[in-house]
Amino acid sequence: MYFASDNWAGASDPIMNALMRHKDGYEPAYGSGKLSESIERRFQEIFETDCAVFVVGTGTAANALALSALTGPAGTVFCHKEAHIRVDECGAPEFLTSGARMWGLDGKHGKLNAQALAIGFQEVPHGVVHHGQPSAISLTQATEVGTIYSAEEIAALSEQAKANGLAVHMDGARFANALVTLGVTPAEMTWKAGVDVLSFGATKNGAWCAEAVVFFNKDYAKDFIYRRKRAGQLFSKMRFAAAQFEGYFEHDHWLNNARHSNTMAQRLVKGLEGLSDSRLAWPTGSNEVFAIVPKKSAEKAKAAGAIFYDWPTFGLDREECPKEGEVLLRLVCSFATTAGEVDQFLDCLK
Amino acid sequence: MYFASDNWAGASDPIMNALMRHKDGYEPAYGSGKLSESIERRFQEIFETDCAVFVVGTGTAANALALSALTGPAGTVFCHKEAHIRVDECGAPEFLTSGARMWGLDGKHGKLNAQALAIGFQEVPHGVVHHGQPSAISLTQATEVGTIYSAEEIAALSEQAKANGLAVHMDGARFANALVTLGVTPAEMTWKAGVDVLSFGATKNGAWCAEAVVFFNKDYAKDFIYRRKRAGQLFSKMRFAAAQFEGYFEHDHWLNNARHSNTMAQRLVKGLEGLSDSRLAWPTGSNEVFAIVPKKSAEKAKAAGAIFYDWPTFGLDREECPKEGEVLLRLVCSFATTAGEVDQFLDCLK
Amino acid sequence: MYFASDNWAGASDPIMNALMRHKDGYEPAYGSGKLSESIERRFQEIFETDCAVFVVGTGTAANALALSALTGPAGTVFCHKEAHIRVDECGAPEFLTSGARMWGLDGKHGKLNAQALAIGFQEVPHGVVHHGQPSAISLTQATEVGTIYSAEEIAALSEQAKANGLAVHMDGARFANALVTLGVTPAEMTWKAGVDVLSFGATKNGAWCAEAVVFFNKDYAKDFIYRRKRAGQLFSKMRFAAAQFEGYFEHDHWLNNARHSNTMAQRLVKGLEGLSDSRLAWPTGSNEVFAIVPKKSAEKAKAAGAIFYDWPTFGLDREECPKEGEVLLRLVCSFATTAGEVDQFLDCLK
Amino acid sequence: MYFASDNWAGASDPIMNALMRHKDGYEPAYGSGKLSESIERRFQEIFETDCAVFVVGTGTAANALALSALTGPAGTVFCHKEAHIRVDECGAPEFLTSGARMWGLDGKHGKLNAQALAIGFQEVPHGVVHHGQPSAISLTQATEVGTIYSAEEIAALSEQAKANGLAVHMDGARFANALVTLGVTPAEMTWKAGVDVLSFGATKNGAWCAEAVVFFNKDYAKDFIYRRKRAGQLFSKMRFAAAQFEGYFEHDHWLNNARHSNTMAQRLVKGLEGLSDSRLAWPTGSNEVFAIVPKKSAEKAKAAGAIFYDWPTFGLDREECPKEGEVLLRLVCSFATTAGEVDQFLDCLK
Repeated sequence: MYFASDNWAGASDPIMNALMRHKDGYEPAYGSGKLSESIERRFQEIFETDCAVFVVGTGTAANALALSALTGPAGTVFCHKEAHIRVDECGAPEFLTSGARMWGLDGKHGKLNAQALAIGFQEVPHGVVHHGQPSAISLTQATEVGTIYSAEEIAALSEQAKANGLAVHMDGARFANALVTLGVTPAEMTWKAGVDVLSFGATKNGAWCAEAVVFFNKDYAKDFIYRRKRAGQLFSKMRFAAAQFEGYFEHDHWLNNARHSNTMAQRLVKGLEGLSDSRLAWPTGSNEVFAIVPKKSAEKAKAAGAIFYDWPTFGLDREECPKEGEVLLRLVCSFATTAGEVDQFLDCLK
Repeated sequence: MYFASDNWAGASDPIMNALMRHKDGYEPAYGSGKLSESIERRFQEIFETDCAVFVVGTGTAANALALSALTGPAGTVFCHKEAHIRVDECGAPEFLTSGARMWGLDGKHGKLNAQALAIGFQEVPHGVVHHGQPSAISLTQATEVGTIYSAEEIAALSEQAKANGLAVHMDGARFANALVTLGVTPAEMTWKAGVDVLSFGATKNGAWCAEAVVFFNKDYAKDFIYRRKRAGQLFSKMRFAAAQFEGYFEHDHWLNNARHSNTMAQRLVKGLEGLSDSRLAWPTGSNEVFAIVPKKSAEKAKAAGAIFYDWPTFGLDREECPKEGEVLLRLVCSFATTAGEVDQFLDCLK
Repeated sequence: MYFASDNWAGASDPIMNALMRHKDGYEPAYGSGKLSESIERRFQEIFETDCAVFVVGTGTAANALALSALTGPAGTVFCHKEAHIRVDECGAPEFLTSGARMWGLDGKHGKLNAQALAIGFQEVPHGVVHHGQPSAISLTQATEVGTIYSAEEIAALSEQAKANGLAVHMDGARFANALVTLGVTPAEMTWKAGVDVLSFGATKNGAWCAEAVVFFNKDYAKDFIYRRKRAGQLFSKMRFAAAQFEGYFEHDHWLNNARHSNTMAQRLVKGLEGLSDSRLAWPTGSNEVFAIVPKKSAEKAKAAGAIFYDWPTFGLDREECPKEGEVLLRLVCSFATTAGEVDQFLDCLK
Repeated sequence: MYFASDNWAGASDPIMNALMRHKDGYEPAYGSGKLSESIERRFQEIFETDCAVFVVGTGTAANALALSALTGPAGTVFCHKEAHIRVDECGAPEFLTSGARMWGLDGKHGKLNAQALAIGFQEVPHGVVHHGQPSAISLTQATEVGTIYSAEEIAALSEQAKANGLAVHMDGARFANALVTLGVTPAEMTWKAGVDVLSFGATKNGAWCAEAVVFFNKDYAKDFIYRRKRAGQLFSKMRFAAAQFEGYFEHDHWLNNARHSNTMAQRLVKGLEGLSDSRLAWPTGSNEVFAIVPKKSAEKAKAAGAIFYDWPTFGLDREECPKEGEVLLRLVCSFATTAGEVDQFLDCLK
């Protein structure tokens, strides 16, 4: 019963098969080979546009480097106060942008909204040298608390950002999970909704180590080969990443993996809804379930071998918070999660 | 006939087998699992000391982050003027150290020597605020031009550095190749010879993407987990790197791979020595051969399908330089190079 | 009627006289002359301790460089959400620390308190690599909203910080104003209350351009000469700054200037208290008065030539906020403010 | 007999008078007042073009921030190997550009030349990600060894730089000294000769602390207000700098100061030429004289109270070097140097 994180799982078979397929022979280094080129074309087909694609090693690198391309000196990036870029990336965005600020804003369900953005734009307006330069907004899709933005919500926030002269970044560490829930196309969830740059994550969804920065607005990509290399993110044997993406996209493997982990999450949700003493902290739109359960139930599950994280609760609104005797759990499903694991876990809570 | 670079090869079988072996099941993320711990112990056994080991994604990251741990504000790193860190890493060392200078020094055969260091220490002495802080020396073993330092040479340069209050870094992108040529132990080539921090490369020697920063002097490792994460180099599914190292070290696979590529390089050397119109620019100590050959021979080889790089010659001493009608070639062998490829190439030069 | 800021005033006479006195003759550059040395001793006398003193050009530089000395990789500095370092220094602290985060916390009257710090320490705990390293707290004395910490409050927050392994920084842009209000010694308001490093400002209190970073804990000062120089803050003709400090400290000039501007502020306060339709947003402890007045009164004053800033109100608690028809004004007094100016302004509000 | 440096002198009278003149009254802070605006117009008149002018506190800041505006990620700046930006600014250019490299090139008389640039452009060509981005050249006028470029030489190097897609920076720490020697206009020595950005120094020539970054190509100035502020270089009481420039430019004071110090330098040169055992290391074009004299003469002068620096000689060509029994001295004249001081010094050498 492993619900600690989707990155506790290994690699799924199509990923490994693709690596096997490409292990031999010679291929130009640093991404200049045919395989890498074919991967870029694959991205362009999937996103139905002439995007520029840069493979990097981690989601942290993808986010921080993407933001470095969007922020000039003294840049400010507006994001939800719980955004990974602000809280969980060890200052990588600040470091790799040479000092941009991640400006945390409130917002229900872990999501930015029009009012929050409007406040942020007042706090850091254009043209006031003391405040620095408002540069971009960053949306996490699916969010850090398992919720998702609709394509319309993304479009509205993008429009608001652009009306204020800002670029739009999407942290898509769990892009596929949101995508299959919404049932829209990759294009509809990104550039058609105003997204300029996407951190596209495959690692949490079955790859070993495959992340990409995807520029829909190629103006921002101008210097990116240098940004990537000087951050130590240009792999010499780039084909190891390209091969993973080949396996990832083949026969809709990425969508199938995401559908599976989402389905497992919904199985958890349904089970939790059947328990009178448990409830969800936030609506589940992806493969992450945040459940408020009796402390005793959580302890029982742990004793039975379930692995998950208790989630911190400072900064939460009252309705999201556990009461006395309750705890807030994060339960993450992955491509490797089985229905049996889920049911066994639910049994523990009963 | 692929001699462009050792990173044009893929992954060798023991590496792939180890990945296969670890693809399933759950393992704590970010390197806190048992596999990662066992890899650190393996490094400690191999180096016969209680070193601290940090996996990163690229050699550039290994070097730049290692140097960031050795340099305070306004640090200066003394290195050969042809060192990869100064010339070929796109400013990553400068960027990830927040501005340290890579201070290039002369030296025959791509190697630092006592006199060159002494000049450097005069140019950037301690305690002069305008000059910044002398911080470290960096040795590349094997060097960028295929030569190697003996363990005694390393020890002498380390002693000179330490007498001047400096730390010693080794860029070991081709560590194994130098090691098997010298026939010393890993300990003798590093900490017993005064090396404080090593960039240990496996990628060029058969892995996909497996590099490590190894601290023999653990004082410098104090903040390193933060340095690695904020540079976007902490892999979530760290086991993919750990697995590669498992395969790399198993049954002396790393040494065997290095011995093979070195042997192929010596086969090239021997062949070149048999040609009256060709010669070596530098003595070959690793898997890289730098040959001065008639332009016509090089063209003939290219026409026959051989792939290699012409090497730039500015900055070279006269005896290292091609004359009119000659070119300088870099020929790199890898674990995948075959005797047949080498012989075919040599035939082209005849 | 100039209440826009204390830095709209020029230089007071003792400052100018000291500059005149030292304009001729030769003095070693870069602070190695006798005058600079005598200034360091003067600081040591005033603070009754063997502190290390580094002159810099701006308060922004003083704060950012001081924090750079307190933060390692991925550092976090806890401060009030309205702190100048977080809001008003254009990302200089983030930039000059190579990416530390200014972690904004709530707190009544623009002041940090035990509960706010406790929340911050939970949000960014020690040893979680994803969150970065908690490094320091920063207190502004007097605060950005004109209030002040008592020496006991400073001591209590310092103790809490140190119990959590953090350093304590004080932004003393208006140090003298707070000091004369409290009636304590400089030592009591700083190192005796646990402050490790102080940004000591003289510019707002009558100098042209004279700021200093004062290290009570000299461990943090180890590399500071390099930090200052590589940030372009080492003046060649350092005596121009030293001379200003000479004039500043002579015959208690600095305390007299601060007492004057505070007295003018209290004259404003008293006048405002006599108006039925006006009130203070926060209690006035220094030379800054934040007044909530009818919009019409403010417009009348402006029309009469008064110069001041309307203050932004987002993020304020209800009781601090102007109501419909009211505005929040910041009124800053300086050494140059006259009682006549104050009275004329108050007349406008009637 | 003070020949240590021109920054050992204080401030000349017109500078102090201007400060006195502007010490009272109110003026908007941060350079938005009328005085600052009038100074920008004065620069535009002097340079006969619509340049953008940014006051900063030190020459180091001027150079480093100017270069930060010219270099993107992984930038390389080509300069003479003895350039102040490479050797004497404590890594400030590297730090404030977030890691650009100062690429040192050879060149007689401390000057870049066409051949040296051509080699540099080969070493760091465009479009090779491993080498970073060639970005700018930087010329020091007058140079670090007292020589000067003619306007034609500047134009030729600029043309070569621009043909290679690079920007042109001039480090004008001793701009006025070169200008009066050449007898050209400020425009002819800068933008008419292809200079894009100038570090304009007044401090060494009689001001306390007045430096400016002057953009002739305003495209590069786009974000500069943010670059300056986030580096802690935006003075609140900006009028203290503006006033110095007012005094500096009034009645040709700057040119007169420069003429005086150059004349004193030529008096030294003439005296040295009359000594059979002394000679110049480089031709003197500004206020710095580099003399090779018998060690005994130098000691005699020191004993008589002369203050100057022995100059390091590593890296010099043979003809520039002192022989056995000789030393290389740097002798700097300033606005405050007197003919009596010079003659007294020359007497010591006889």
